[in-house]
Amino acid sequence: MPDHLLFNAFTMSTVSHLLHGLWTHPDSRHRDYADLGAWLELAALLDDADFDALFLADVAGVHETYGGSPAQAVLEGVQVPANDPSMLLSALAASTRRLGLVFTQSILQEPPFNFARRVSTLDHLSRGRVGWNIVTSHLSNAARNLGLDDLPDHDERYARAEEYTEVVYRLWEESWADDAVLADPSTGRYADPAKVRKINHAGTYYRVEGPHLCEPSPQRSPVLFQAGSSKAGREFAARHAEGVFIDAVTPLGAHEQIADIRARAGRHGRNPDDLLFFAGLSFVVGGTEAEAAGKDAEIRAHLSETAFAAQFSSAVGSDVTELGLDTPIRLIRTNTQQGWLTSLRESAPDQEWTLGTALTARMGRRVVGTPERIADQLAEWRAAGVDGVNVIAATTPGTYRDFIDGVLPELRRRGLARTEPTEEGLTLRERLFPGRPARLTANHPAGRRRLYPHRNHEEKAVS
Amino acid sequence: MPDHLLFNAFTMSTVSHLLHGLWTHPDSRHRDYADLGAWLELAALLDDADFDALFLADVAGVHETYGGSPAQAVLEGVQVPANDPSMLLSALAASTRRLGLVFTQSILQEPPFNFARRVSTLDHLSRGRVGWNIVTSHLSNAARNLGLDDLPDHDERYARAEEYTEVVYRLWEESWADDAVLADPSTGRYADPAKVRKINHAGTYYRVEGPHLCEPSPQRSPVLFQAGSSKAGREFAARHAEGVFIDAVTPLGAHEQIADIRARAGRHGRNPDDLLFFAGLSFVVGGTEAEAAGKDAEIRAHLSETAFAAQFSSAVGSDVTELGLDTPIRLIRTNTQQGWLTSLRESAPDQEWTLGTALTARMGRRVVGTPERIADQLAEWRAAGVDGVNVIAATTPGTYRDFIDGVLPELRRRGLARTEPTEEGLTLRERLFPGRPARLTANHPAGRRRLYPHRNHEEKAVS
Repeated sequence: MPDHLLFNAFTMSTVSHLLHGLWTHPDSRHRDYADLGAWLELAALLDDADFDALFLADVAGVHETYGGSPAQAVLEGVQVPANDPSMLLSALAASTRRLGLVFTQSILQEPPFNFARRVSTLDHLSRGRVGWNIVTSHLSNAARNLGLDDLPDHDERYARAEEYTEVVYRLWEESWADDAVLADPSTGRYADPAKVRKINHAGTYYRVEGPHLCEPSPQRSPVLFQAGSSKAGREFAARHAEGVFIDAVTPLGAHEQIADIRARAGRHGRNPDDLLFFAGLSFVVGGTEAEAAGKDAEIRAHLSETAFAAQFSSAVGSDVTELGLDTPIRLIRTNTQQGWLTSLRESAPDQEWTLGTALTARMGRRVVGTPERIADQLAEWRAAGVDGVNVIAATTPGTYRDFIDGVLPELRRRGLARTEPTEEGLTLRERLFPGRPARLTANHPAGRRRLYPHRNHEEKAVS
Repeated sequence: MPDHLLFNAFTMSTVSHLLHGLWTHPDSRHRDYADLGAWLELAALLDDADFDALFLADVAGVHETYGGSPAQAVLEGVQVPANDPSMLLSALAASTRRLGLVFTQSILQEPPFNFARRVSTLDHLSRGRVGWNIVTSHLSNAARNLGLDDLPDHDERYARAEEYTEVVYRLWEESWADDAVLADPSTGRYADPAKVRKINHAGTYYRVEGPHLCEPSPQRSPVLFQAGSSKAGREFAARHAEGVFIDAVTPLGAHEQIADIRARAGRHGRNPDDLLFFAGLSFVVGGTEAEAAGKDAEIRAHLSETAFAAQFSSAVGSDVTELGLDTPIRLIRTNTQQGWLTSLRESAPDQEWTLGTALTARMGRRVVGTPERIADQLAEWRAAGVDGVNVIAATTPGTYRDFIDGVLPELRRRGLARTEPTEEGLTLRERLFPGRPARLTANHPAGRRRLYPHRNHEEKAVS
């Protein structure tokens, strides 16, 4: 495990992703979320600074628990409008050289056959820089947008996710052998039909014949990210994820989640260093503590408690407009397990957390200070076992520019950030796991699907 | 109707799109179909030459009628491997300024909610340059890739297409009012919830709640293309298409199709000039007739009859490996109506067309000669009522470069191609229909869905 941390820019093609209200900040370009020029500028900044990835969040529906309607979310731009992240990342492939391109997509959004093909296409176009953040949707509106009556229950969503990933792994890994493509103009043979096969998947939720329409891309399977905090989510991460986005409030909370998921991964035959763990933090950087505090006061002045409450309500499945801010959170009924709430309680077990103090904490995931102070804090996260940080935008691209110009040099001095530029031409997997191959190996359920040369697969080939 | 013709580059992100075998030609980059650099080069060529659009074909499955398996198609790269066209076009948005970006997608591939969102995203990113070629799939493998037992029958596919388009039109046109977005940082109001509404679609094939996740893009609905030649296909084109891709062998055949579809459009309340008709042609250009003939001989030498037969078999639904090349085509059972076969028979009604002569004709849709001779022929197509040409690649980018350098100047001299460069900043719809608005008007089923300001829609708003 290297000492240096990995850094993703964690944002979303929407008005207000996580630090709600900041789109009204005069220095932020959040309102330009649909403008390609703004994204090209951000991508160039990150690519030049050798960030590991641009990591885009997503939703497939609106937040409508708060007040029983999406009105508050629509009013304050809380993750709506929201453009499709995969199309945006493809638009950034040509102008970036090294940056990983990671997007979130729910398994409810699209049939696995079509999804697998779009990912393979982007992996070809970006020369292997794609990552997929696997989510199962937590918004019932998303389910009703996609032809279901309501959201399947939590465990069924994970059962679907298991089958969905099985299908896409088979398409990515098993349908075309490594040596299927001949591309020989002298004989007119493009591919060997004996080495391309149908997957003939017939399961509980999906039926997919195949073959995959894409020839093997540099990574075959994209780098797999996941952010489950429930028990089923942790099990899923342990089986599938190469990058786990943990939702911890303190390094201690992170440490507990990491240890638990690593132990689970070991039980699935994976090595502990097959998984990288990312914490989500934002940063407010100043030349002095006073300057940083001043910038943060301005940021705080733009935060919107109602917008946070709108997202919080659908996240926990409980309409907080019916509760007072002094309601203890232990009394709030949640229909999903919220890792950060658990982490919050564990971070101060003697404190009676209320809705108000929890929302304030949620709005407060900013590390504020001089580069030295921020580096001190990141050293603590690193010591707790965190491999990287998903850097959340307060202002955009301001948060990233300040972090790159202010904090990264200090982190490099301490060996907490890469000191040598990453070479061009690496896939995202090779960048994140130095010395490892571009493709998943056989101790992962996707790699296990690969048609290794020694395996006789001709019996099932399309010919 | 202007005298000048419109020009799209008609190709596909695959090894062998239509002129099968040409990927083996030493001057062609067909094999680089997965390489973004090759596409950036082609897109720059087209954008600089003021082509109207890059029009990408697609399939959602393999051709497997020929010999009862996909082996021949896989062997010769006949539309497999095939990358996703929408991802590719998004990757070309940043580097192009004026070029239309038109992609084919079947209504079977993706839930309408997700599709509508991806199109809106690309329309935002490209500033309104997106077109959608609506297809219903003709490959049974496509259906089995996407969770169906088999392809729905032809009329049911069009019934699905009617409902699918209704859903996406409602998302694009009806969900957000023109004045829904406030984007006012002084009040923190991004959008007016009274002007954003769910569509609550519950039909035979689809249930979609909404609201659309994207705010209105420059065109709202993309420019709609279609290529139906059956009766149901022509009816669908007459109702929906703004660009109709006709599959005619001669100007006379084109004339008949155009007159029929325009008459049908009139019966649906549309104006005759609401529809543009495109013929598919390839060109082999020489400084002399002899030079052109020499280039064409080389092209002909790379054509593959078996590859054509593989595509032909699944297009007509009849395995031609069981027939001789001298089988009369009137005896070949076809499960879909093939416009080009009809046109072929009508072009020479006294001739007994055989499988062999039909395949040769199919392989022969190249106009060969000097720029003057090609311009003569295009004048005939124009006189027959054709508005534009989908230029099919023999070699790529060679076909396009030769056409741009050799033929376009002659066409401009004759007023058969634009003589003034198109201004930047136009949407694709404004480019194709000069003087018209960027959005569909109320005589189109999509425009009819618009929330016009005079309509009271607050009763259904999300608030």
